[in-house]
Amino acid sequence: MNLILLEPGDLLDAQTACLTGRRLRHVQEIHRAEVGQTLRLGLINGLMGEGTLEEQSPDRLLFSLRLDQPPPPRLPLTLLLALPRPKMLKRILQTVATMGVQRLVLMNSYRVEKSFWDSPFLQPAAIREELLLGLEQGRDTVLPEVLLEKRFKPFAEDRLPALADGSRRLVAHPVAETACPVGLNAPVTLAIGPEGGFIPYEVDLLVRQGFEPVHLGPRILRVETAVTALLGRLFV
Amino acid sequence: MNLILLEPGDLLDAQTACLTGRRLRHVQEIHRAEVGQTLRLGLINGLMGEGTLEEQSPDRLLFSLRLDQPPPPRLPLTLLLALPRPKMLKRILQTVATMGVQRLVLMNSYRVEKSFWDSPFLQPAAIREELLLGLEQGRDTVLPEVLLEKRFKPFAEDRLPALADGSRRLVAHPVAETACPVGLNAPVTLAIGPEGGFIPYEVDLLVRQGFEPVHLGPRILRVETAVTALLGRLFV
Repeated sequence: MNLILLEPGDLLDAQTACLTGRRLRHVQEIHRAEVGQTLRLGLINGLMGEGTLEEQSPDRLLFSLRLDQPPPPRLPLTLLLALPRPKMLKRILQTVATMGVQRLVLMNSYRVEKSFWDSPFLQPAAIREELLLGLEQGRDTVLPEVLLEKRFKPFAEDRLPALADGSRRLVAHPVAETACPVGLNAPVTLAIGPEGGFIPYEVDLLVRQGFEPVHLGPRILRVETAVTALLGRLFV
Repeated sequence: MNLILLEPGDLLDAQTACLTGRRLRHVQEIHRAEVGQTLRLGLINGLMGEGTLEEQSPDRLLFSLRLDQPPPPRLPLTLLLALPRPKMLKRILQTVATMGVQRLVLMNSYRVEKSFWDSPFLQPAAIREELLLGLEQGRDTVLPEVLLEKRFKPFAEDRLPALADGSRRLVAHPVAETACPVGLNAPVTLAIGPEGGFIPYEVDLLVRQGFEPVHLGPRILRVETAVTALLGRLFV
């Protein structure tokens, strides 16, 4: 935890926060914080800065706050990701939050196993928990927006044009002729398929929406590896 | 498994391979292969190509081989990595093999937990198993070279100069003033510290060996995320 995140409900007033639960245990067991000690804190979707531990007891910690720094800038990226299997989803949600992705669309695709859509990890509270872990790691306060799109065609035809408006549109496709560009540092909508890739019908539909197929070299990467490698490459 | 890897001992002659064990089960259960079917095969540290299933029984598969393609080119990279915790090590070994890293040095650093060096995952057979999984994923046959260096100073002072000779030398350091370069596509020696980073003494020692400290932006990445993001960025 490189940053301790505060929920709005943790604030007793604008300068005082009360921590309980997981974060309390972390501060006591990992930081072994003592009264008077200063830690990095941030308000979810708000400013970050420091807090001084003023009081501690077994069931709560009181911090006085000085939150005066903006969170780091977002990556101007909408990531369209074919829904991965639950275990990988958890790691990707963390990575996406750590790296500052603006918006994540978890979408269906022909090769997505139908049962994945029933995973308890897709509950809003479960998604939020992984995102918070990622923000704590990356030292950021801003939650990525996460959308679920259970039907590929209506999403790609009806809602995607507005979402992707004004952005460079790329679809990762191992057999593409063009290599993925580097250091765009501009608004991007990036589609990454499931293990095994998008089927040709899906790639064609994305191409009709202005997406350029791009490859990442001759190697086949796991989805979570491709996500991170592409983020490291597009935004520098 | 995007490529089935053959050990030299699997070859009955230059054109015939016999598979047993994990790979047999994979071919029977996942590929559901039938006699006459063609699959992608490669010889570890050798050529890759196709094999036709000629005979199958519950305990062995016979393939006739046409191995005529070179594996994809290596990344000209020596990765110096402070030994991560065992679970993360497994994933990093796979990633390193999937992405074609030439050489990995697992080294000590002040913030590496001593107990990590006793992990059974550091046994040569255990390392090789993860690397093979990574090669199967990436569709490559060439095992990265893996070195273990349990003492930082003698390694950095005595053996590193020869290992890094002729390469651009970078050390990932969150507080560096320079951003990590992009698309070098030339020999690189890249050092990545443990969670929490290298201590100043270690960075100084690497700087004296010609390493440039570089950062990856304002966010703190987990080690495995940093490895993948840096590989995606340095080699395009």
